[in-house]
Amino acid sequence: MIIVLKPETAAAMQAKLVAQFGSKTELFTHHNRIAIQGIQPADLPADVVAAADDLITDVPAAVQSSRLLHPENTVIKTPHSVIGGDQFVMMAGPCSVESADHVMAMAKVAKQRGATVVRGGAFKPRTSPYSFQGLGEAGLQALRAAADANDLDMITEVMDDEHVPMVAKYTDIFQIGARNMQNFSLLKAVGRTQIPVALKRGMSATIDDVLNAAEYIAAGGNHQIMLLERGIRTFDHKYTRNTFDLGAVPVLQKLTHYPVIVDPSHAVGEWDLVTPMAMAGVASGASGMIVEIHDRPTEALSDGPQALKPKTYLKMAQQAFQLHDLMTSWN
Amino acid sequence: MIIVLKPETAAAMQAKLVAQFGSKTELFTHHNRIAIQGIQPADLPADVVAAADDLITDVPAAVQSSRLLHPENTVIKTPHSVIGGDQFVMMAGPCSVESADHVMAMAKVAKQRGATVVRGGAFKPRTSPYSFQGLGEAGLQALRAAADANDLDMITEVMDDEHVPMVAKYTDIFQIGARNMQNFSLLKAVGRTQIPVALKRGMSATIDDVLNAAEYIAAGGNHQIMLLERGIRTFDHKYTRNTFDLGAVPVLQKLTHYPVIVDPSHAVGEWDLVTPMAMAGVASGASGMIVEIHDRPTEALSDGPQALKPKTYLKMAQQAFQLHDLMTSWN
Amino acid sequence: MIIVLKPETAAAMQAKLVAQFGSKTELFTHHNRIAIQGIQPADLPADVVAAADDLITDVPAAVQSSRLLHPENTVIKTPHSVIGGDQFVMMAGPCSVESADHVMAMAKVAKQRGATVVRGGAFKPRTSPYSFQGLGEAGLQALRAAADANDLDMITEVMDDEHVPMVAKYTDIFQIGARNMQNFSLLKAVGRTQIPVALKRGMSATIDDVLNAAEYIAAGGNHQIMLLERGIRTFDHKYTRNTFDLGAVPVLQKLTHYPVIVDPSHAVGEWDLVTPMAMAGVASGASGMIVEIHDRPTEALSDGPQALKPKTYLKMAQQAFQLHDLMTSWN
Amino acid sequence: MIIVLKPETAAAMQAKLVAQFGSKTELFTHHNRIAIQGIQPADLPADVVAAADDLITDVPAAVQSSRLLHPENTVIKTPHSVIGGDQFVMMAGPCSVESADHVMAMAKVAKQRGATVVRGGAFKPRTSPYSFQGLGEAGLQALRAAADANDLDMITEVMDDEHVPMVAKYTDIFQIGARNMQNFSLLKAVGRTQIPVALKRGMSATIDDVLNAAEYIAAGGNHQIMLLERGIRTFDHKYTRNTFDLGAVPVLQKLTHYPVIVDPSHAVGEWDLVTPMAMAGVASGASGMIVEIHDRPTEALSDGPQALKPKTYLKMAQQAFQLHDLMTSWN
Repeated sequence: MIIVLKPETAAAMQAKLVAQFGSKTELFTHHNRIAIQGIQPADLPADVVAAADDLITDVPAAVQSSRLLHPENTVIKTPHSVIGGDQFVMMAGPCSVESADHVMAMAKVAKQRGATVVRGGAFKPRTSPYSFQGLGEAGLQALRAAADANDLDMITEVMDDEHVPMVAKYTDIFQIGARNMQNFSLLKAVGRTQIPVALKRGMSATIDDVLNAAEYIAAGGNHQIMLLERGIRTFDHKYTRNTFDLGAVPVLQKLTHYPVIVDPSHAVGEWDLVTPMAMAGVASGASGMIVEIHDRPTEALSDGPQALKPKTYLKMAQQAFQLHDLMTSWN
Repeated sequence: MIIVLKPETAAAMQAKLVAQFGSKTELFTHHNRIAIQGIQPADLPADVVAAADDLITDVPAAVQSSRLLHPENTVIKTPHSVIGGDQFVMMAGPCSVESADHVMAMAKVAKQRGATVVRGGAFKPRTSPYSFQGLGEAGLQALRAAADANDLDMITEVMDDEHVPMVAKYTDIFQIGARNMQNFSLLKAVGRTQIPVALKRGMSATIDDVLNAAEYIAAGGNHQIMLLERGIRTFDHKYTRNTFDLGAVPVLQKLTHYPVIVDPSHAVGEWDLVTPMAMAGVASGASGMIVEIHDRPTEALSDGPQALKPKTYLKMAQQAFQLHDLMTSWN
Repeated sequence: MIIVLKPETAAAMQAKLVAQFGSKTELFTHHNRIAIQGIQPADLPADVVAAADDLITDVPAAVQSSRLLHPENTVIKTPHSVIGGDQFVMMAGPCSVESADHVMAMAKVAKQRGATVVRGGAFKPRTSPYSFQGLGEAGLQALRAAADANDLDMITEVMDDEHVPMVAKYTDIFQIGARNMQNFSLLKAVGRTQIPVALKRGMSATIDDVLNAAEYIAAGGNHQIMLLERGIRTFDHKYTRNTFDLGAVPVLQKLTHYPVIVDPSHAVGEWDLVTPMAMAGVASGASGMIVEIHDRPTEALSDGPQALKPKTYLKMAQQAFQLHDLMTSWN
Repeated sequence: MIIVLKPETAAAMQAKLVAQFGSKTELFTHHNRIAIQGIQPADLPADVVAAADDLITDVPAAVQSSRLLHPENTVIKTPHSVIGGDQFVMMAGPCSVESADHVMAMAKVAKQRGATVVRGGAFKPRTSPYSFQGLGEAGLQALRAAADANDLDMITEVMDDEHVPMVAKYTDIFQIGARNMQNFSLLKAVGRTQIPVALKRGMSATIDDVLNAAEYIAAGGNHQIMLLERGIRTFDHKYTRNTFDLGAVPVLQKLTHYPVIVDPSHAVGEWDLVTPMAMAGVASGASGMIVEIHDRPTEALSDGPQALKPKTYLKMAQQAFQLHDLMTSWN
């Protein structure tokens, strides 16, 4: 349950509850609220009940991720970005880091129209073991250099818990891939760092699954979490790679305080569908977008068909910011 | 296959092909194009081949619905609306026609912010036989009166082929419901009329299923077809009634010439998610929207939870048109 | 709610409840039980409460289909079959009635290994309007003749409410196709007859959807209903046409009293997978099977790839009955 | 492509191809067959073409897992079991190892009716971080002791690559859980061992995804792989936890040489549905079954609702072997 305490005595009551229940169950405090797992109102001391404005008993398992415990938005600050605030954050770059020169060129394109984060994979979770698996640490170094040269933040995927320390040396934001969304060892490992984590929704992850996966990160003490909607697997994948579930954006915003980012590239998998879906993603109210770009998509080492060429990207990004400006005018 | 004929001799060649193959297979002509089912290039007379600019052999079953035969957009003109042109068409009204007075009041609200079509169900396809089944012909009359009093077009669902003549007496646009998308007898029946048809995508209909269903209507001679994306059934329906598949909008626009309309109300099923999804629908490039409104949603005879109250609708509609204006400026 | 009345006073109490509530709501009686829609225990007269063994308030919308009202199995008797009893019922035949001779030959094959029902479509719900649509009434006549010549029952699909009287002249069992599972006009039309109905589960119909669709038939007064599991639409259909949901067999048997029949042919869509799935269907506890056979599958007018050749069918059917015999020995 | 070489010169030709292409691409040999990635028939030396019985160019990415390269069944031998041969293998035990005594008692039950493998989780992938996470190494020790005392093999889940060496000290078979099916780091780690691996199908994994995941293990040199069908995620999960996709059994058997095992417990998630689905699994042709048992399901630390009580398990297992015996008589 969650107890909403009167502000003036909240600290004292929280201390009392921690003293009484802390050795038996999980407790989480946030401002004047406190969540206690497995406790009913009848178990509470009378003075706590008297000091409470509200007792919320219908509480999800992912309690730290819930707005019931943490009503205000989480805003994540990286060197060049504010994620979850009033600004719309653009993240762009190639699917894979293919070479130092290439990612440097793509970062420059990304930067041109307002991106503040450059993306690129150095460790690639490929369906087949015989596909390109990424440049590894050399890829991390190249992406870091490209980010620094263009005053951008860097986001890159970490694929297993053993790699967390190495990736942490370079990146501003960890990305957890869709296939690893319930790799709990990995979630715990990034949860022990203080580096922001972008958690991608799994192909068939329910909203509750996403929130519980985020909770694994939060349970380790890392609350710098953003959620990425990248399309789900449904019965029809003939014309799009996945089904972009934009309804998840306002649903997640209602349930959780973490920023929600959309990934139209993976959602549709075809470059000529990316711009309309990017616009739809902005219009749905997302806090940002991550998009794949490539100057020669047919030669890309991975996911070429969904990459935007620079010219298309630049037009799309301009429209995205115009659309976000219009939406800001509505508030 | 589809033969793209040189314009100057197109008519003559089409006549020749109809004479040669017309008794054996289906032929469809559109401007300088002709589609012939079950025929290979080697079957064609030499002069037809010589008169062709292109021979397209990879042709979908739903050939009349395909842009390969009909490259330009279908634009549907009803008394008060142009659907599929440059304008964004707003269709709004209650889920069910509940009474003459109520639907009159709702039509007035719809009209206030630019709707040109009023919606309302007189025959309701309800999951349970014991739920409200609609007012029947009295509902049609009330909706017609509400449309006329407000200079609006009327759209309403027809549930079976026997009812087509009766509904045709009143409506400007037939709606085929999601559960009837593959009720082929009904599709054939509306295909024999010349009244525009709004075909809702079935809950688990693939893009190809939608196009084949539209083809049943076209095969009867009625080409006034629009397609409604209203959400599909996926693994997660805890927080939304369906999954709004906005990727279907640009996919359908690429494949077919029929206008695509979005239905955010049924897609999400919760009123507080309708506005962001309505905005996403506009941004995806749809030609219009159909949305449910009700002044007292908790008392609605059907689908109350997804109805927008008038005030929310009016704000949403204003934003939708602003967003569409911005998008128009990009072209 | 459902009231389980003490047997000795059940009739009197039911009469009393019908008198009191019959004009306001739906009531359904079955032996010593009575279901009343929209009524709470507090609304009941005291003597009814006193005469009740149980008051069940958590009742599904599809109340007549529920075991809560009708605990014992429904057993359907046709001239040559008992469906839902201890016997396993085999229904076999071609997908479409292609000619009088062909269906006669196939009926003879079906009969050889224990089938008591011959199937065949005279009205075919085809995805494309340009595919073979069936022989119509001539097909019905041919199938009737094939059934009669082999002492078999006949099952055939009825596609719309207008055809119900014509099909009723010939068939022993109506089949409602998957695409029409929620064609409520059709369900009501067969519900007004007393001919047994085999209701196919829709491609994305939930268990509750199936039961509510059955309830439309029951609400009309026809309780001779059997349910057909024929595979559902999921994310993977590369190697099978649908996903055979055999879990639905025991689930439906727990919830409803109607017999459950499996259709392995449509479930997998590939003939070489039909035998293992047919065996799995028997082992799941189904009351019967409907399977497609054809002597020259590559020339079949519909669904050839999933048809068993006679030799394969005969072996499969033999095994099915052996397996059912083994299962009978376990009870 | 795959080259099927005439047996007499196969070894020489394989050596020649390895010498020519081995530094540029992946080659895999199996008896008289050789697979070469990215090579076309035109690239082959003339004497290789002359020495070939067949050139197969339509080859899946997961080539080592394919019957095209490896036509005969893989049979895995563990101390007490032969998996993939003529016998049906029963694996049973509690979901989690809860205590040394408890797992010892459950192993004894499992053994009573023919199980040769005891299951139990020491590291548990739980949706919520606050749920029981398993006993860790102490659990492995307890399960090992229970297996040894009852002359059983042991199967247990390994959740991340760091734990592979520790789990390897105890187990006869690694289990890879559904949520980790595409944890490629983990797949590579178990691929470097020679311990048999039971790979569970992911919740939304296609058949091709399963085969590619298996290929990651094989690519490391470990070919002792079995595949577990445990239900997939679909639109309906009200009455069953997942949808048991038994069609996957014969599909996988057609495509791959690895044994296929069914897991009815996770597939349905409700104990009273486990027996019919277990029977269906045997009838589908699976090589074995893994099933959860518990003497006090309501007190189980995980997945209690799906556990069979000993008495139910014993009856189910007896029926399963009788059914398998009947099926053996058909061959």
